[in-house]
Amino acid sequence: MTEVQTFQDSQPTQDRLPKVKEIIDRVGVSGLRTGLKLTNSAGSFFTAEIDLFIDLDTERKGIHMSRLVESINEVVSKGSRQPKDSFEMLGLDILTELKNRHKYSNGEISIKTTLLLRRHTPVTNKPTDEPYDVVVGVVSRNGTFFKNLRVKAVGNTLCPHSLETTKGKAHVQRAEVDLWVEVPIDVEIRLEELIEICEKSFSSPTYTVLKTNDEAAVVEEMFRNPKFVEDVARDCFRLAKNLNFKGKVRIRATSFESIHKHNAVSEIERAFL
Amino acid sequence: MTEVQTFQDSQPTQDRLPKVKEIIDRVGVSGLRTGLKLTNSAGSFFTAEIDLFIDLDTERKGIHMSRLVESINEVVSKGSRQPKDSFEMLGLDILTELKNRHKYSNGEISIKTTLLLRRHTPVTNKPTDEPYDVVVGVVSRNGTFFKNLRVKAVGNTLCPHSLETTKGKAHVQRAEVDLWVEVPIDVEIRLEELIEICEKSFSSPTYTVLKTNDEAAVVEEMFRNPKFVEDVARDCFRLAKNLNFKGKVRIRATSFESIHKHNAVSEIERAFL
Amino acid sequence: MTEVQTFQDSQPTQDRLPKVKEIIDRVGVSGLRTGLKLTNSAGSFFTAEIDLFIDLDTERKGIHMSRLVESINEVVSKGSRQPKDSFEMLGLDILTELKNRHKYSNGEISIKTTLLLRRHTPVTNKPTDEPYDVVVGVVSRNGTFFKNLRVKAVGNTLCPHSLETTKGKAHVQRAEVDLWVEVPIDVEIRLEELIEICEKSFSSPTYTVLKTNDEAAVVEEMFRNPKFVEDVARDCFRLAKNLNFKGKVRIRATSFESIHKHNAVSEIERAFL
Amino acid sequence: MTEVQTFQDSQPTQDRLPKVKEIIDRVGVSGLRTGLKLTNSAGSFFTAEIDLFIDLDTERKGIHMSRLVESINEVVSKGSRQPKDSFEMLGLDILTELKNRHKYSNGEISIKTTLLLRRHTPVTNKPTDEPYDVVVGVVSRNGTFFKNLRVKAVGNTLCPHSLETTKGKAHVQRAEVDLWVEVPIDVEIRLEELIEICEKSFSSPTYTVLKTNDEAAVVEEMFRNPKFVEDVARDCFRLAKNLNFKGKVRIRATSFESIHKHNAVSEIERAFL
Repeated sequence: MTEVQTFQDSQPTQDRLPKVKEIIDRVGVSGLRTGLKLTNSAGSFFTAEIDLFIDLDTERKGIHMSRLVESINEVVSKGSRQPKDSFEMLGLDILTELKNRHKYSNGEISIKTTLLLRRHTPVTNKPTDEPYDVVVGVVSRNGTFFKNLRVKAVGNTLCPHSLETTKGKAHVQRAEVDLWVEVPIDVEIRLEELIEICEKSFSSPTYTVLKTNDEAAVVEEMFRNPKFVEDVARDCFRLAKNLNFKGKVRIRATSFESIHKHNAVSEIERAFL
Repeated sequence: MTEVQTFQDSQPTQDRLPKVKEIIDRVGVSGLRTGLKLTNSAGSFFTAEIDLFIDLDTERKGIHMSRLVESINEVVSKGSRQPKDSFEMLGLDILTELKNRHKYSNGEISIKTTLLLRRHTPVTNKPTDEPYDVVVGVVSRNGTFFKNLRVKAVGNTLCPHSLETTKGKAHVQRAEVDLWVEVPIDVEIRLEELIEICEKSFSSPTYTVLKTNDEAAVVEEMFRNPKFVEDVARDCFRLAKNLNFKGKVRIRATSFESIHKHNAVSEIERAFL
Repeated sequence: MTEVQTFQDSQPTQDRLPKVKEIIDRVGVSGLRTGLKLTNSAGSFFTAEIDLFIDLDTERKGIHMSRLVESINEVVSKGSRQPKDSFEMLGLDILTELKNRHKYSNGEISIKTTLLLRRHTPVTNKPTDEPYDVVVGVVSRNGTFFKNLRVKAVGNTLCPHSLETTKGKAHVQRAEVDLWVEVPIDVEIRLEELIEICEKSFSSPTYTVLKTNDEAAVVEEMFRNPKFVEDVARDCFRLAKNLNFKGKVRIRATSFESIHKHNAVSEIERAFL
Repeated sequence: MTEVQTFQDSQPTQDRLPKVKEIIDRVGVSGLRTGLKLTNSAGSFFTAEIDLFIDLDTERKGIHMSRLVESINEVVSKGSRQPKDSFEMLGLDILTELKNRHKYSNGEISIKTTLLLRRHTPVTNKPTDEPYDVVVGVVSRNGTFFKNLRVKAVGNTLCPHSLETTKGKAHVQRAEVDLWVEVPIDVEIRLEELIEICEKSFSSPTYTVLKTNDEAAVVEEMFRNPKFVEDVARDCFRLAKNLNFKGKVRIRATSFESIHKHNAVSEIERAFL
């Protein structure tokens, strides 16, 4: 097959000089869906969506995209035989495997999936598996590794102002907390504890199933904990601060207002040095 | 230009026989965004997303897609000089214009946009423009024209069961009604009256701006009108029935539960003969 | 606990007469996310999004929503100990379990998830797990069960008209086939074979990883199989017809045009009696 | 009305001390949809989605959300009588109006809408209105105003590597450039010129309508301009640099690969001092 040899002998298009000599900060694949196996407590198998990017110097026209995907597939395949215990360890392995296959200075991977965590309803104590969207990132910056953990939890807010002005009545609504931390890779923070922090920040957490007495307990809890979206962000921040880590934190609380068509939003961003 | 003549002289690829001889029910363009001008009360200029489909017999490989887009552009262009007074008249004109340019038996167009309607807050009477997603369709079936009007409105539900079991407290949440009617093209139904029907079906309508006394009035109204998502669908249906038309109606009420991560849904479908 | 007894003794709000006496066609939960275990070949564990609806007569104000969720949780929990071999068997079990807990005439469940299927690249024969969105529905209509299988596959189209007019050059684009069949529950059709049908309908299938020689083979295949979006729908229909079942089929092929900002779409709907 | 007076006399809930004394970086409304009028060349009326945030000190429990919406409504209402000539002037007016109604140190607004710009097809010179998503932001940081202009344009990429290895054949796909610049508010940059820069970065721009000869010209242009997603980002950067402004620029080019189910992405971020 002459044609095949032609490809192998000549210099690949990617390795030639680009016309415009500028560093590319991030180049790679986005939205690649695959299956991941873990040994962690929150489950064993996950369908995940992966973004994997590296930087590119000024001397090469393009990266070899297929090597990024091969690195993912290699680590995922190994991981299905000998599962890792966290997404960040999988991410770290993929960035390390990629280093053997493709030159880069900075690299980053993000793994987006859904965790299901066991909860119990407040009165009848029924078991229920609650879903949480998470994104785990690993970033390699000049040889140092960081991890980003991002979790989203769904709860509710009950308006304190409304509770006062309408004397015991109030508008309530579904709300969401999006909590993001960036820390050095070896800092011990688990997705599960970040999710718990989010859930404690609402007027009340939410459940897939609620019998009448459970529902009553949830409603009573809401009315005992009226919260502005500002309070949700502050309470989430206070609990995150208690984790006592060095790194960055970003909180976005959103209240899907039941009296408006738009949302109320509150954000706090801090660096702990 | 020999090349150009070649295209014009030979039979276009689209007009050849297809290998598989099957009728195509709908073929055309989707997600085409353009600007539309109207003389109606709800505003004058709209950015809309258009789907336009026709059928195709067994003797031709493909339709001439560009003629569909030319028909849209032609009518939109005329309409910007002499605006029509409804989306369905624009849709009808596009299907008629297309008939001159391309053979078809059945055709359909749908126009998706956002209406802004003037409302006033309940106590302080402040003016506010509220947004509503709408889809207006025109269907030509064997020479007869029908129109589909679909509107979505955002309101709220207050749970009647919860209100009883927790004695005056209750969970509340944002809710949506999606109301769809199909009628012969000459039946007089306006998007504005369908939207009003949706808004009357909730525990309370919603507003972009609410001062403290307005907010209190909305909360009081919610607590006076506790509704299951079933009640929202039924009330919407009852009001739609009062319009007294012959045609089809479909209602989907969705309650974005504040005590759950999932939604509660209720649907009614009927034909009025 | 007097309060709790109060709830149990009195007639629940749901069981009272509604003001508007209309049948609700579908009422229940949507977007409930949970984890499902199967013994089938395409994997073992799935995060799924479930919609579960029943009808409601004119004599009761509301359904008991929590019983729907309990039925899901009960079957999912049993299924994690003794996995079923298909989503439709899980769906059937949930509708059956629900019958013991809540009166209904018509019920339907839909389970939305992602399948990962093993493929191999065309030249280097590398293994790759490709993702496919699927929705499996089970419908109970007056005691008879039907299943809906819906799959989406991503491939591409190469324009035959363009290939002729520009003499060997052509525009290519990502494309999608959405194939839906409804059959009696005992008809043997598997999601995997529907996905294969979709993939055979494109100019070429797509892969997560492609080495240079694989990529060349995919490009050559595209240029050997120029297809309008009409051809994709027809080829998909021809292959689906070969499955030789009695039921309904609906195909929607979408081409995300590389020369336009909008899409080209082609649909075929048929009933096989 | 005793009740109303009660609200006015007492200290509103929002103005009390919060339990957790932390600054809120951004609090306000998101997803508020309204209609905007402009005198600019790209059209006259726009349905826009607005986010408006301010910061909040440690001494107050909450902001007065309704004042944010009132500021938007006030400026929009004035603007419909005396239209401004840019979205950033509307944003600046809203932040200024808000200053009169509510105390804040930092504020920001973002206005998301769709521009329709007149283009002409390459050979037959047909007029066509092409849609572009844009987001215009205005940020007030300690009294200094900046603007963010973000535009998205849809074009295509033709793979240079594939063009070589398959000798004149190549895979092509829809692509997108997302270009974002942040500059002091008085720097003269228009959305229209940013969109032009994006469109010049692709293998070819795209059009709503293309007759056979236009389509051939677009395909020929693609094959004359093979580009990796890296080349798209670099060319966009080179053209943006030519605008010769002081500020920040961020480019994200995405190629919706026709040979893969995932995307290829390339990003460049720079500050011009």
